[in-house]
Parts: sequence; structure tokens; C-alpha cells
Amino acid sequence: MKPINVGLIGIGTVGGGTWTVLKRNADEIARRAGRPIVITAVADKNLELARQITKGAARVTDDAFSLVNDPEIDIIVELIGGYGVAREVVMQAIANGKHVVTANKALLAVHGSEIFSAAQERGVMVAFEAAVAGGIPVIKALREGLSANRIEWAAGIINGTTNFILSEMRDKGLSFDDVLKEAQRLGYAEADPTFDIEGVDAAHKATLIASIAFGIPVQFDKAYIEGITRLEASDIKYAEQLGYRIKLLGITKRREKGIELRVHPTLIPAKRLLANVEGAMNAVVVKGDAVGTTLYYGKGAGAEPTASAVIADIVDVTRLANADAAHRVPHLAFQPDAMSNLPILPMSEIETGYYLRLRVEDKPGVLADVTRILADQGISIDAMLQREPEEGEGETDIIILTHVCQESCADAAIARIEGLSAQKGKVKRIRLEELQ
Amino acid sequence: MKPINVGLIGIGTVGGGTWTVLKRNADEIARRAGRPIVITAVADKNLELARQITKGAARVTDDAFSLVNDPEIDIIVELIGGYGVAREVVMQAIANGKHVVTANKALLAVHGSEIFSAAQERGVMVAFEAAVAGGIPVIKALREGLSANRIEWAAGIINGTTNFILSEMRDKGLSFDDVLKEAQRLGYAEADPTFDIEGVDAAHKATLIASIAFGIPVQFDKAYIEGITRLEASDIKYAEQLGYRIKLLGITKRREKGIELRVHPTLIPAKRLLANVEGAMNAVVVKGDAVGTTLYYGKGAGAEPTASAVIADIVDVTRLANADAAHRVPHLAFQPDAMSNLPILPMSEIETGYYLRLRVEDKPGVLADVTRILADQGISIDAMLQREPEEGEGETDIIILTHVCQESCADAAIARIEGLSAQKGKVKRIRLEELQ
Repeated sequence: MKPINVGLIGIGTVGGGTWTVLKRNADEIARRAGRPIVITAVADKNLELARQITKGAARVTDDAFSLVNDPEIDIIVELIGGYGVAREVVMQAIANGKHVVTANKALLAVHGSEIFSAAQERGVMVAFEAAVAGGIPVIKALREGLSANRIEWAAGIINGTTNFILSEMRDKGLSFDDVLKEAQRLGYAEADPTFDIEGVDAAHKATLIASIAFGIPVQFDKAYIEGITRLEASDIKYAEQLGYRIKLLGITKRREKGIELRVHPTLIPAKRLLANVEGAMNAVVVKGDAVGTTLYYGKGAGAEPTASAVIADIVDVTRLANADAAHRVPHLAFQPDAMSNLPILPMSEIETGYYLRLRVEDKPGVLADVTRILADQGISIDAMLQREPEEGEGETDIIILTHVCQESCADAAIARIEGLSAQKGKVKRIRLEELQ
Repeated sequence: MKPINVGLIGIGTVGGGTWTVLKRNADEIARRAGRPIVITAVADKNLELARQITKGAARVTDDAFSLVNDPEIDIIVELIGGYGVAREVVMQAIANGKHVVTANKALLAVHGSEIFSAAQERGVMVAFEAAVAGGIPVIKALREGLSANRIEWAAGIINGTTNFILSEMRDKGLSFDDVLKEAQRLGYAEADPTFDIEGVDAAHKATLIASIAFGIPVQFDKAYIEGITRLEASDIKYAEQLGYRIKLLGITKRREKGIELRVHPTLIPAKRLLANVEGAMNAVVVKGDAVGTTLYYGKGAGAEPTASAVIADIVDVTRLANADAAHRVPHLAFQPDAMSNLPILPMSEIETGYYLRLRVEDKPGVLADVTRILADQGISIDAMLQREPEEGEGETDIIILTHVCQESCADAAIARIEGLSAQKGKVKRIRLEELQ
């Protein structure tokens, strides 16, 4: 069969990996796809880099639109990132009737509705396996592998930088700031790490997971986002003593009245596989009503792992490039005319367990006051830990794990506890999920 | 769109689960698939059971061939199991131009070549996600999600019964026989557990994994199969002391001259996620050259988890039922004219690490003899453990973990060790994989 012609836009880390893997495994990939897949043109602002990598084996240009407008190109692979040129490139490729493969979670999480509906109208595919959890084929698992299920929830470690930092904090008992510096030195964190450590990158991915799990439009602006910058080594240690580990999770749950969509540090039982995902690795747990709990694990970033997902998408698109659109898996897993209109719930309505760390005067009656406040809010206690105050300290930490309750009840209880004269400063609150 | 009509053959555990899930999630599934999926007819020898489950919502018969020959039926779902009627049903369905979905690993592992080539010739699909690791979409991950990769190896816990038994032996320090009885009482093991505990079921699945990982014909007769019946509680304990756990793994590896395909108890590092897969759960680790190590985890058996995979296959087949065969994923991941002819290697040529348990006289020079024998065979020692002999015992256990070597070298070394006068009886040998 005639080769499929790919235009690669952006030949940085992931683009370079895509070029390398597609060259190295060209034969193996053609044996699977049934036809050769060839990158015929590469666009990058850094022409020298592009020439260095392609060594004359593809046309090189700094004009992305010359690829998008090239009638010989069947598939555009967008690996520039960001919302600017990337968006124009993707929209123009769609308008020109080209299929698109992208790893750009930020673009899809923010402009996904516009992009998917344009693609739907023009009858082309926009594939994005590489946008979530790098090389792990979790988009495919959710959209196709679990299609029999009513998905109940998904929760994942979907940012390698923060998981590396949390793993190091736990292993070595170090502070967030010290580990961040180490992570930057090792290349696990960017010079400006804000997007990762504040949870924004994880929220982009969680937004996409929510859409394909429940068939809702992409709504990044409704996601709750809390990063790991305020986590303290002592919280990690207390959690460990109670049999839990703290991970930055992207969580989305189906509830009767809507969908929960949130990213925040989360206590999870230490015995869960997910709690044992260490370093920069990623993993996503998906609970379906028929299949039960499933987990998908692998590298969430890096040149070749991400290229693995980009190329798998190219192969999928290649298979269906000339097929009737009815044969394709819908972009957001559900047919465009059969999407759900369940809203994203405000945080006050979510339900979860809580880890509460109180700093209290070491005197009689404090615990009675605290437990009465919790009981008044209908919150039951699952476990409690009181640190023995040191000689002459006069204050101590009380750690409380609660059962699942509504966040508005937890907020009310925390406000009342902070009003007690025995409580010093703010109550530290971290959410807790059993993941069963 | 017009509903797709399914004929369900066999309404036992998995068939019943398929009926239930397809009814319960009919709306959700149709919203994904783009058209309703309806079981219009059910065949089972137990007519009463079939009537009880279907409650008049489908035609019921005890004649499987009346479904296979029904021109109104688009897809045959074969859930009888075994090689007899199941084979005839599948072959006749294919001959009649019907697509087939099956959970029958035994049938495909033994007669797969005949079945897939008949399907290829007739232009129909035979889908078998449910045949490997139950509800975990690992066939999809291997055939599609990792299509960019040259697969290096795959290793999995793909039999829940044996994993339950091994988990219990380790947790409670019990013997194989005691735990087997408990497993039978709890319904985790069959009255005749041979297929599971001797590794045959795992070998059926490993055979299928090898075929789709490397694009080789299914060759169950070439698989090496060793069950867990001769595992002793002491080996599990010694392994634990050395930082390993023992799991029954199905393993397949690409080597330069051929493919390794083997099922046996295996020591794996306790810190690997796979080592922490407990009870009746399944998990498969796949190493690709681009993606690195990935893992897929979930329930490997049971009515609804297996139904989840059966129905996902029905949805996939539904999407492509009327499409050109060129758009479909090949049965064994590679195009039929592009299969590999790499042979399955004989066990003497495989390469792995070893756990060796010696029972020796407690006298000077024994260890020197043993280590010299290993050195002569070019085998290097990774770790050693010598149990302190009890008062007046006169004999003791020596445990040796070796680095990777060829099995023929290990066999030669073991034969020479067994020839030492200080060695009592046979050397206990368990293979070891680092899984990195």
C-alpha cells in the first residue's frame, strides 16, 4: 500500500523522539500498520537542529503552515506545545482536511471543544494519546478497552515531576524546597517549575480524563487545582505512621448530580499499588462498574515514551484515514450527539476523607472540643494520632483522619476548630481517598 | 443506526455476566458505539438457566448452530470453552461470514493458526481480549497502544488461582496443600485444579501474548510449563529474606535467535509493582524499546470483569463490521504476510537468573566446592544465604541467587553439585527475573 505521509511540526524532545523511533522501528511499524509511515517534512524554528536530526531524509522548513497546507501530507503531528501557534496549526490542518496527532494537553484542555467540534465537522481525527500519562495507553484503555463500563472514577499520578519530589521527600525526610532544587539539578523539574508543582499540568490531563470517562465537554476552567508547594515533611511522616502515603492525584468521579474534577495532594493507603508508584513514573487507576479497579503504569514523559504514544496514534489514524467516520472511536469516547450534560460540581459539594493536623495547647478538654465539633458536622473519625509533646513544649500536634464527608461540612468543622482558643493557627487539611 | 445483532453461545458465568452488563449499560454502550448492541438469541444446553436469565428478552435454544446459521446475526460470542463444540461453532461462524468474539484461550492457543487464517480468508474478525487477563485491556495495549515499539519482553501474573495460593502461602506461612484446600473451599480453585496449578491455563495465555508481542504463530505445544505444586513454604520464606517474592509468571522474551516462552514459578524483586499484585488479581508487564516498562493490572477472571472485555470486543467489532478489512487491527498484531519466523527456543537456550537451594552437610570445604562448580560454568553469584544449622543437625540449607546465565549452564552446574557427596538429594531450582 502507498505510504502515509506525515508532517512533523516541532522537533524538540518529543518530536526528536518521534523521528528516532519511527526511523528505528520503521519495518516493525509497517508490518503492523500494513503500510509504511514516512515523515516527509519537518517544521521547526530551529532549522539547524531540524537538519541535524533529519540528515536530509525529510524536507526541513521553519514555516509550520507550509506543512499544514501541503496537499501531499496526510497527517499533521503537532509537537510545539502551548496555545499560540499550536492552536492555529491544528485548526488550519483540520480546515484543510488533515488528521492531527498531538501531545498538547494544555491546548486540548483549554480549547478542546472548539478543536474536536471542528474536526468532527470536517470528518478528520484528532488523536491525543500522548497528552495524558506519556507512553501509557490509558486514553485507549478508557475510550475502547473499558467501553462496556459505566466508569465510576479515575485517579492518577499524572505528573512525574511532582511524584519525583514527593518520593524524595518521603525517602529522605527532606523539605519541599530542598528536593525541588535537587529535582531541578537532575533535570526532573524545569527552571520555572510552576506548571508542574502548582498542579496545572496534572489538571490539564485530569480534565481530558474526565471528558473521555464520562462523555462531558472539556472544562479546564472548572477544575479545582492545588499543588504540592505547601506540603510539609511532617505531614508525609504522620501519614506514613497512619499507613498512608501522600501523592499528587488527578481525580475525577461520577456523582449523581455531577462530576468531581480535582487535583490536590492526597493521602492513599500505603498498600495500594498506586501508593508504590515512585519517582517520575505515572499510573492511572480506573474503576468501572463491570471490570472493577484497573491500573495502567509506565513512563509519563520523556522523548521515546511520549513518542511511543504519538506513533501509536499515527498508526491508528493510518488505519482509519480513508474509512467512513462512523468506524472511528469518537474523540471524547461518546458520540458527539450523545454527550452528557452533567456539570462539574463545586468543591463544596465533593465528598472525600480528610487528614487534619491541629496544633493545640497540651491541656485537658481540647480533644473533647474537637471531637464534638466533628460530631456536630456529622463527620466520623477513622483514626487519630497525638504526638507526645516534648519537655516544656506546651503544644502538640493532633492528627485526625475522617471518614468520607462533604467538603462543606469539613470546611465548617475546620473553621470552628480554628476558632478554639487552644488551636494555634490554621488547621492543616489534606484530602484522603481509599481508592477502592 | 440499525442495531447490531449478537448471538450468545454459552450463558454460564461469563455469558451470564455479558448478558447482565450489556442490559445494564445498554444506553451508555450505545452512546459510545453509535448504535445499539442487542443479544437477539442465546444458545445453551441448560435451557432452563438460559430462560431464567434472559426472561423472554431473547430467543433461547439449545442448538448453537441455529445461531451460527442465522442470517440475522452479525456477531457470534462463543463462551462455551474447550476444544470440541466451541471449535466447530467458531469455524462454522467464520465460514458463514460472521465475526466472532471469544474468551476461549485454550481453543486459540491450540487451534489459533487454523482459526485466524480461516477468518483472514473469509474477511471476518475474531476478537479475544477476554482470553488473556480477563477485564484488563492488555491485548489492546499490546496490539495497538504499543504499536510503535519493538517489544522486548512481557511477563505476567495471568492466573488468579495460583496467585491467590501463592499470596496465602506467603502471608500465612502455610503449605501448598493446605492453601489449595482453602482456595477450593472459597471458590478460588476448581474441584479439579490441575489446569490452574500446573500452569496450563497461564501457558495458554502466555502463548497468545507471545504471538501478538512478536508476530509469531500461536505455538502452545512449544511452551515450557511448570506449575506451583512443588513450591515449599521454606522457599517462599528464603526468597523473602533475600528481598524477592515468588510468583507464577507467564514470560515471553525476544532473543536474537528466537523467542522464549515459558510459565514457571519465578523470584522477582519485592519492590516491583508486579510483586505486590496480591490475591486473585492479574497484572502484565510489557517492556517496549521506546516506551520502557509498562504495567496493566486488574481482575483476571469473574463474570463481569471478563464480560467487560467481551463487550469491548463486541463494540470494536461493531465499529468495523462493515469496514474494509484493511482498516482492522490484524489478529496477531502484525499483517498476516508480515509475520515473524523466529522459532520458540528450547529451554536449554533460555537465559535467566536462578535461586538454588542446596541441602548440604555442615562441614568445611562444601561452599568452596559449590562456588568452584558455578565458576567453572561461568555462573556468577548475586547473593547467598546460609541457614545456621540447628544444634546437632549436621545439615543445613544454602541458598544461592545467580546472575543471568544460560539454562544449559545452570543444568550442568546443578548436576555436578548433586554429584557432591556433601549434597543431600536434589538441588531445588527456581528461576529468577529482575524485570527491568
